[in-house]
Amino acid sequence: MKNIRNILNSRFKRNGNFFMELTKILGFKPKHIEFFKTAFTHRSMNLRDGEGNAINYERLEFLGDAMLSSVIASHLYQEVPSGDEGYLTKMRSKVVSREHLNELGKELNLIDLVESKIPAGQFGDNIHGNLFEALVGAIFLDRGYKYCEKFIFKRVILPKVDIEKLEGKVISYKSLLIEWCQKEKKTFGYNVYEDTGNDDVRHFSVKLSIDQKIVAKARATSKKKAEEKASKRAFFAFQNKISKMI
Amino acid sequence: MKNIRNILNSRFKRNGNFFMELTKILGFKPKHIEFFKTAFTHRSMNLRDGEGNAINYERLEFLGDAMLSSVIASHLYQEVPSGDEGYLTKMRSKVVSREHLNELGKELNLIDLVESKIPAGQFGDNIHGNLFEALVGAIFLDRGYKYCEKFIFKRVILPKVDIEKLEGKVISYKSLLIEWCQKEKKTFGYNVYEDTGNDDVRHFSVKLSIDQKIVAKARATSKKKAEEKASKRAFFAFQNKISKMI
Repeated sequence: MKNIRNILNSRFKRNGNFFMELTKILGFKPKHIEFFKTAFTHRSMNLRDGEGNAINYERLEFLGDAMLSSVIASHLYQEVPSGDEGYLTKMRSKVVSREHLNELGKELNLIDLVESKIPAGQFGDNIHGNLFEALVGAIFLDRGYKYCEKFIFKRVILPKVDIEKLEGKVISYKSLLIEWCQKEKKTFGYNVYEDTGNDDVRHFSVKLSIDQKIVAKARATSKKKAEEKASKRAFFAFQNKISKMI
Repeated sequence: MKNIRNILNSRFKRNGNFFMELTKILGFKPKHIEFFKTAFTHRSMNLRDGEGNAINYERLEFLGDAMLSSVIASHLYQEVPSGDEGYLTKMRSKVVSREHLNELGKELNLIDLVESKIPAGQFGDNIHGNLFEALVGAIFLDRGYKYCEKFIFKRVILPKVDIEKLEGKVISYKSLLIEWCQKEKKTFGYNVYEDTGNDDVRHFSVKLSIDQKIVAKARATSKKKAEEKASKRAFFAFQNKISKMI
């Protein structure tokens, strides 16, 4: 560790500013600055530790990617109780998409902190996302999972993760289901009937059939609500087929 | 939450034993038993909460998989400083392979705790791994990342993750590199010379060429060590090509 610290300190041009600028991005003071220096060292610097291992941000990308995936997974798990495994996986991949990570890295101007022998203009677009991942990896090494979670919450989830938008702005599951049935040339029908039972309030039940087969049932305080509820259930039952359409 | 607890309590046949058997597997007492009951509820039980969301272990698999991936990533990051991103990703996928997870689930006899309407004999092999993932997901919800990490360390990393074995029992990088060159019909040569410089101890340097091009250099206290070091560097430089062979 000491070895790496010395190598990085001697090569890092902006030692003074780096700490201040980094603290602003992180929202806390880093404890082990060398993790962050590694996160901003490009492979063109050709740095190696005493064992000949490369010092640059590429391995930290691997770590940061893993932390992003698990923090976003736990957020989606709690926020989207109706989504099954496949659905959650798909939503997560939208959040941690290359495009999205590049956007995040750009907004924080991470590229300004990079030490590299290549002129900044020659980097491709992916460097922004790669630096963002590496930064998350460095936060994990410096402060552990909790800080990582907080940082991702502040920088990714709060400003970027709009569950409804991710779900493809699904406002009515009924219209979505009907659209799908029409496209796939399937017949469908909502069989609604009053079903108040022992309740004080009037209730309705609905049986939703597709191709003459009942695929979902629901019960609610209005016809419309019951139909929407049944459509949502059918949507999640068929989601792998339907979601190709969205 | 209370709602789910009631549904699960009324359906779980083995309430008494479940807590004891689970505590034995976990190595700690669960705080919110309903997370673990969900982790052992098969979809054939057809349980739903008040909103109509399914209660079974499938969503917890998604969460557990994410936690396993990040804990294993951070372990490998620290234990294999010479492996680059691609290499670490590959090693991780060996650890969290379907086969491996099934083995882990089987060893803990997780299937004995499942509540299902399907006879145990009719489950495929993957249920073992799925239950293991779901259990990890439940640990995360119950106690957070640290406990998850401890559990994975005790149950996966300590007994199962042998870095050298994962690396494909690479004992000599030199022999691996030579084998590859021969297979690919590439010429190679180790140009070794004494290079003690200002050191007190005798040192040797080596230039390793493949197809007449120098691909790696190294310096060490013996010819053999220098050759092995250079081979290792070349191995990691070419690892995507070479690893297809292993």
